[in-house]
Amino acid sequence: MGKVLVIGCGGVAGVAIQKCAANAEVFGEICIASRTVSKCDDLKAAIEAKGTKAKITTRKVDADNVEELKALINEVKPDVVLNLALPYQDLTIMDACLACGVHYVDTANYECEDTNDPEWRKTYEARCKEKGFTAYFDYSWQWAYKKRYEEAGLTAILGTGFDPGVTSVFTAYALKHYFDEIHTIDILDCNGGDHGYPFATNFNPEINLREVSANGSYWENGKWVETEPMEIKRVYNFDGVGEKDMYLLHHEEIESLAQNIPGVKRIRFFMTFGQSYLTHMKCLENVGMLGTEPVEFNGQEIVPIQFLRRLLPDPASLGPRTVGKTNIGCIFTGVKDGKEKHVYIYNVCDHQECYKEVGSQAISYTTGVPAMIGTAMLMQGLWKKPGVFTVEEFDPDPYMDMLNKWGLPWQVDENPVLVD
Amino acid sequence: MGKVLVIGCGGVAGVAIQKCAANAEVFGEICIASRTVSKCDDLKAAIEAKGTKAKITTRKVDADNVEELKALINEVKPDVVLNLALPYQDLTIMDACLACGVHYVDTANYECEDTNDPEWRKTYEARCKEKGFTAYFDYSWQWAYKKRYEEAGLTAILGTGFDPGVTSVFTAYALKHYFDEIHTIDILDCNGGDHGYPFATNFNPEINLREVSANGSYWENGKWVETEPMEIKRVYNFDGVGEKDMYLLHHEEIESLAQNIPGVKRIRFFMTFGQSYLTHMKCLENVGMLGTEPVEFNGQEIVPIQFLRRLLPDPASLGPRTVGKTNIGCIFTGVKDGKEKHVYIYNVCDHQECYKEVGSQAISYTTGVPAMIGTAMLMQGLWKKPGVFTVEEFDPDPYMDMLNKWGLPWQVDENPVLVD
Repeated sequence: MGKVLVIGCGGVAGVAIQKCAANAEVFGEICIASRTVSKCDDLKAAIEAKGTKAKITTRKVDADNVEELKALINEVKPDVVLNLALPYQDLTIMDACLACGVHYVDTANYECEDTNDPEWRKTYEARCKEKGFTAYFDYSWQWAYKKRYEEAGLTAILGTGFDPGVTSVFTAYALKHYFDEIHTIDILDCNGGDHGYPFATNFNPEINLREVSANGSYWENGKWVETEPMEIKRVYNFDGVGEKDMYLLHHEEIESLAQNIPGVKRIRFFMTFGQSYLTHMKCLENVGMLGTEPVEFNGQEIVPIQFLRRLLPDPASLGPRTVGKTNIGCIFTGVKDGKEKHVYIYNVCDHQECYKEVGSQAISYTTGVPAMIGTAMLMQGLWKKPGVFTVEEFDPDPYMDMLNKWGLPWQVDENPVLVD
Repeated sequence: MGKVLVIGCGGVAGVAIQKCAANAEVFGEICIASRTVSKCDDLKAAIEAKGTKAKITTRKVDADNVEELKALINEVKPDVVLNLALPYQDLTIMDACLACGVHYVDTANYECEDTNDPEWRKTYEARCKEKGFTAYFDYSWQWAYKKRYEEAGLTAILGTGFDPGVTSVFTAYALKHYFDEIHTIDILDCNGGDHGYPFATNFNPEINLREVSANGSYWENGKWVETEPMEIKRVYNFDGVGEKDMYLLHHEEIESLAQNIPGVKRIRFFMTFGQSYLTHMKCLENVGMLGTEPVEFNGQEIVPIQFLRRLLPDPASLGPRTVGKTNIGCIFTGVKDGKEKHVYIYNVCDHQECYKEVGSQAISYTTGVPAMIGTAMLMQGLWKKPGVFTVEEFDPDPYMDMLNKWGLPWQVDENPVLVD
C-alpha cells in the first residue's frame, strides 16, 4: 500500500482520484491538493460517502510556487506525485519532486502560460526552426530533466492520459504482439458526443482553441511536415459512433513515438470536429472574441477569450447532458514474419455511462482512468527506472490489463479500413 | 432663407448637414446640437474649410431631456428642427417642438431604449396583439401627436430617410404618374458594398441585430402576416450590383403605406444579407454575445453586445474601405387605364463616390441626403400643413426633382423582373 499526492482537483483529477480510491490495494493513502481546498474537501466527502478503503486527506497549494510545493511534498511524504494541474505547472512540480526525492507522473506536456514572455519566445522560436514544426508544446522542456532524474534515482512518467498515454501504450503493445516492424501509425481521436448546445467546449476554451488554430504537423520519412491549420481533412466511419469529419493536428505523442518506435515511417494524429463547432470558432476568431490580449473597455481591461469563457456553458455542466460515445485508438501498418499487416486498437467509451459511474463525461474519464493506471504502474514497481520516460518505453501488458479492468476495455481489429 | 436646428451629429447627420450647407439658399443658418459639442465643432470647421454660404453655429444638448431641448429651441429659434439623434429620442424632441411652436422632421420612427420598462411593455404587448405583428417599432407612438400638432398649426414630417422616406415618395410618384391603382409594392433594399472585414456592422450593432432577429411581417389583403425571423428568402439580380440573397423583414413604411395607398393588396420589404454576415450573427447569438442584459464578470457588469461593439470595427471607419454600390427601390404592380402594369423605381449609389464627396459611405449618404430634402420641402413651404405626416402624403414631384439634383438620381424600369 502506497501513498499518492495528487495536485489539481478539476474534471480529470476527479475521475483519477475516484479510481485511485477504488483501488486502495495500491493507493492506501491519497492526499488531494489544489489552490481551492474546498474542491478537494468536496471530492473527499463524496468519495467517502460512497465508501473507500483508502485514507484521504486534503491540502491547499499554489502549483506555480516551487517552495510551497516542496513544503507540501516534505510534509505529506508521498511515494509518487500525480500532477493533474494545468500543463503550465509541469516544470514547477517536476522541480519540487526532484528536490524532495519523489517520483513524478503527469498526463500532458508542458505549455507556457505567458507566450509573450521574451525568454520563452527565444527558446520557442529556436525549437520551431530546429524541429521543423510549430513547437508550441513539445517534450523538450521535460526531457531536459532526464539526467537529473537519472542521477537522483527517480522516475518521471510523462503523458499517461489517453492521447498521449493509452495511444502510446497501444503502440508498444502492437509492436510487442503483432508486428516485427511498424511502418505507419494513425492516431484517431473521435468524440461523437452531443451536449445539445449550439457551441460549448469540453475543457478550457483557451487550450481548445490553440489546438484548432495552430498549424498541423506529422512525421514522415525522418522529418516533420507542417500543414496549415485544419488543412488535411478525412472522413472516417468509427465503430460505435459512425461517420465523422476529422482533421490532422500536431500532437505531442508523435514526437516521442518517432524516437521510440524503430523503423516507423509516418505518424499522424487526427481529431474529429463538427462543422458547426469549426464555424463558431472561426466566427468568434473573426470578431476578435478569441483574443488573449486585454482590451480596454469602459475603463477596465477585459481579455476577450476569458469573457467568452464566462458566457459559454461551464465544461463541468456538460456531463449530465452529453450523450453518445468517444472512440480513440491507433491504426498500425507494418510487417510480421515478412508479411504486411494492418491492426487497429481502440477504445469506445460512452458519455452517459461515465457520468453515471463518476459524475463526468467521457472526455475526463478517458484521461483520468489512465492517469490512475500509469501511477499504479509506478507505485507497484512495474514501471520504475531512473529517468524521464513516455509510456511506450515500458512493458505495455500490465497497463493493457488494467485498462480492461478499470473501465476502458479495448478492441483489436485486424482488418481495419485505412486512412488515405 | 431659413434656419434649421439639427439635433445629432453622427454619420447620417454629417451627410445631411453638409448637404444643407451646400443648399444655403434654403438653409441660411444651421445650428448643430449634440451631447458631444466637439463633434459639432469639428463638422462646422470641416464644412467652413471647404466653403459655405450658410451660417453655422453649434450647441450642446442632451436629447433625452425635454427641458434642455426646449431651452435650446427657444434660444436658437429655428424654423424647423431636424431630428437626427437616435430613434430613442423622437418623442422628447417632438414634445419640445410642440411646446416651442416649431416644425419637426425625422428619419426613423420611435423605438424604446429600455424594452424592459414595464409601462412600455404593456403598450407594446397590447399593440402586437392589436396589429398582428411584433410591433417593436411602429408609428403609433408618433401618430398619437397628430391632434396636438394640428391644433398648434405645426407640421411634423416622419421618416424622410431612404427607407422609410424615398421609398414612400417613389410610391406616391408611381401612383401619381404611372398607375390608377397600385396593387402590390415590394421594397428592395440591397447593399452590395464590401468593406473587406469578415464581419462588421454598418451602424450600431444593437439596432442592426434587432432587425435581423425580429420576426418578419408583411401586409396582405387588409391584414398583417407574421413570419419567423429570416423565414422568407428570395434571390434578386440588382442593377449595378448583381445577384444577392434578400430576406423579408418588417419595416415601418409598410404600416403607413397600407393606410395611405388606397386599394393596395400586398406590401413587402426585403433586405439583402450575405451568408457570412448571417452566419456570424447566428454564432454570436448562440454564444450569448448579442445579449443586452449585463453579465457579472470579474466583479464588473458587462453587457455582451456592448463589448462586441468594442471589438468590431467602428462603423465610421468603414467609409474609406467600402467598395461597391447600394440599390434601393420599389417594384409596383397595378393597373393604368384598365391594363396591368409593372414599374420599378430605384436609386443606385456608389460607396466610394459618396466617400469622396462627403467622407461617408452610401449607407449614411442615402439617409442623410433625403433628410435634407424633406426638411427643405418644409422650409420652402412645399410640404407644410398642420399635423403629423409620412412622406407619401405630400406631392412627390419637387422631392423627386431634388433627389436628382442632390446626389440620388433615380431610374424607372417599366419592365422589371418581379419577386415571387
